[in-house]
Amino acid sequence: MQNHYLVTGAAGFIGSHLVDALLARGATVTGIDNLKLGRRENLAPALKHPAFKFYEADLNDPAACEKIIADQSVPFTGAWHMAANSDIRAGVADPDVDFQDTFLTTHNLLKLMREHKIPRLAFASTSAIYGDLKQKLTEDIGPLFPISNYGAMKLASEAAISAAAESFLEQAWIFRFPNVVGSRATHGAIFDFIHKLKKNPAELEVLGDGTQEKPYFHVADLLDAMRFITDHATEKLNFFNIGTSDTVTMVKYLAETTVRAAAPAAKIRYTGGNRGWVGDVPKVDYSVEKLRKLGWSPRLTSNQAVDRAVAEIVAEMKTF
Amino acid sequence: MQNHYLVTGAAGFIGSHLVDALLARGATVTGIDNLKLGRRENLAPALKHPAFKFYEADLNDPAACEKIIADQSVPFTGAWHMAANSDIRAGVADPDVDFQDTFLTTHNLLKLMREHKIPRLAFASTSAIYGDLKQKLTEDIGPLFPISNYGAMKLASEAAISAAAESFLEQAWIFRFPNVVGSRATHGAIFDFIHKLKKNPAELEVLGDGTQEKPYFHVADLLDAMRFITDHATEKLNFFNIGTSDTVTMVKYLAETTVRAAAPAAKIRYTGGNRGWVGDVPKVDYSVEKLRKLGWSPRLTSNQAVDRAVAEIVAEMKTF
Repeated sequence: MQNHYLVTGAAGFIGSHLVDALLARGATVTGIDNLKLGRRENLAPALKHPAFKFYEADLNDPAACEKIIADQSVPFTGAWHMAANSDIRAGVADPDVDFQDTFLTTHNLLKLMREHKIPRLAFASTSAIYGDLKQKLTEDIGPLFPISNYGAMKLASEAAISAAAESFLEQAWIFRFPNVVGSRATHGAIFDFIHKLKKNPAELEVLGDGTQEKPYFHVADLLDAMRFITDHATEKLNFFNIGTSDTVTMVKYLAETTVRAAAPAAKIRYTGGNRGWVGDVPKVDYSVEKLRKLGWSPRLTSNQAVDRAVAEIVAEMKTF
Repeated sequence: MQNHYLVTGAAGFIGSHLVDALLARGATVTGIDNLKLGRRENLAPALKHPAFKFYEADLNDPAACEKIIADQSVPFTGAWHMAANSDIRAGVADPDVDFQDTFLTTHNLLKLMREHKIPRLAFASTSAIYGDLKQKLTEDIGPLFPISNYGAMKLASEAAISAAAESFLEQAWIFRFPNVVGSRATHGAIFDFIHKLKKNPAELEVLGDGTQEKPYFHVADLLDAMRFITDHATEKLNFFNIGTSDTVTMVKYLAETTVRAAAPAAKIRYTGGNRGWVGDVPKVDYSVEKLRKLGWSPRLTSNQAVDRAVAEIVAEMKTF
């Protein structure tokens, strides 16, 4: 049977790349996005594709969603739920942001899927569900005490999906994303740095002391991993960390790479301390052994992902 | 400083016992309940106490909650969040029940606490957050994949509280409740059995084959454990399983005890199978070592708790 996917957050950073990838694989794709963080430009290639349809709509508007469902001549075979708040800091300032955009969208999507018998769900979760556990972050550890509303509402979504898998979903895949970088990013350190440098090409202020390490992951590898997992993981409820286990990138490397590409004359000033902001996890040991055992490994190291993303975002910003 | 507690779900089974216990310890107590599951009769003793005030209000009605806050001459020193849906089966039929009554109440309470600087939170979580993990249920295990919306929305609440503890709460205590029994129960197997027997004193139908085991815990022990934990657990975010580790009760024992007390002539008929209903966890190995190490142990075994609760509920129902 021809796959017909519903992609939520379709105009967002990862959602729009996902739409392109699913179309390239021959699927029919219907995208939803409220364009709060997503941008219509991200869908420029997809909108030319005959198998793609886009609806500007909010998942938290049940009437709009029912209309979209009614509008389909072919039923959905699955949903990819990428819609979420992606700005951790916005969610620290106002807990309603992650509640509404991250959790409530999941709750409402699940209700829609139950009502209209959409059998399969792939969900963008996050490494932030682990909070600041001081141990190797394998998929089966606990306790799970996220330190940001962002992580909390992603964990809440996982929990709701887990109950739905027990009750009515045929199959579900939970991907715990690392820091993902690449073109069309709407947030994140590279994005912030480049914007800061555009305003002030003489100096880049960096939160923390520059020694924080995170694994950065390129969106191309992410899409390939998601494809691999949905093709090969056959449990009813599948959950995988996606990322690069061996390699991390220091904030210092990221700042220097960005400065080199965007504003070579800028001086970098570190604010000091080992935490950038409330809810930011300073160091992580993120295990991707489970995914490796399934048979998939990333092509790019963390630093290579940063190099490529910086180049892409700098190029992209020149065109705006 | 005199403690002034906000108790949510104050007219409920556990909430009303908690109100009595807090008043007995000399605190001032303000109770909120929407009386959806709670009953005003449960507060009969408390309503005679000068240090108790009750508001019939829904935590999901922000205007009503703001009014209650404005009505206080003494600020709240802490909140005990007991309000929730307590009927797992209702939440399987309609995911909005647990979403609204269990999770959204937590989200809205946290917003209220943040806005009005209420520093401490004690929360009624559940062993159902563990899903059906086939291992010893210690507090720090994972992965956490609840199999009911009830467990999912309790886990979602824990996650939101965890983020709030990182952001603005001074201290939080999470209690993972077992099956709690005692007078004023509004749900649960004993309650159901007695109601069934009232309708049909000749036969009691019991879901499953009678061999399902659960630890049952008396509400008097529960209140004592909550008191002990809030007095002695001094982390910023404290989380404890509460229950009895060594003893469990078979459904068979529970059914026979109830029949003996309520309708001695009734025959028990088992429907067969090892699961009662979707979302019910058949067997658990619930560890309370952490609580034991803190210095607290239950006074009653699981079967003693059942004996006492059956006697109390049968006596209580005769008075209605």
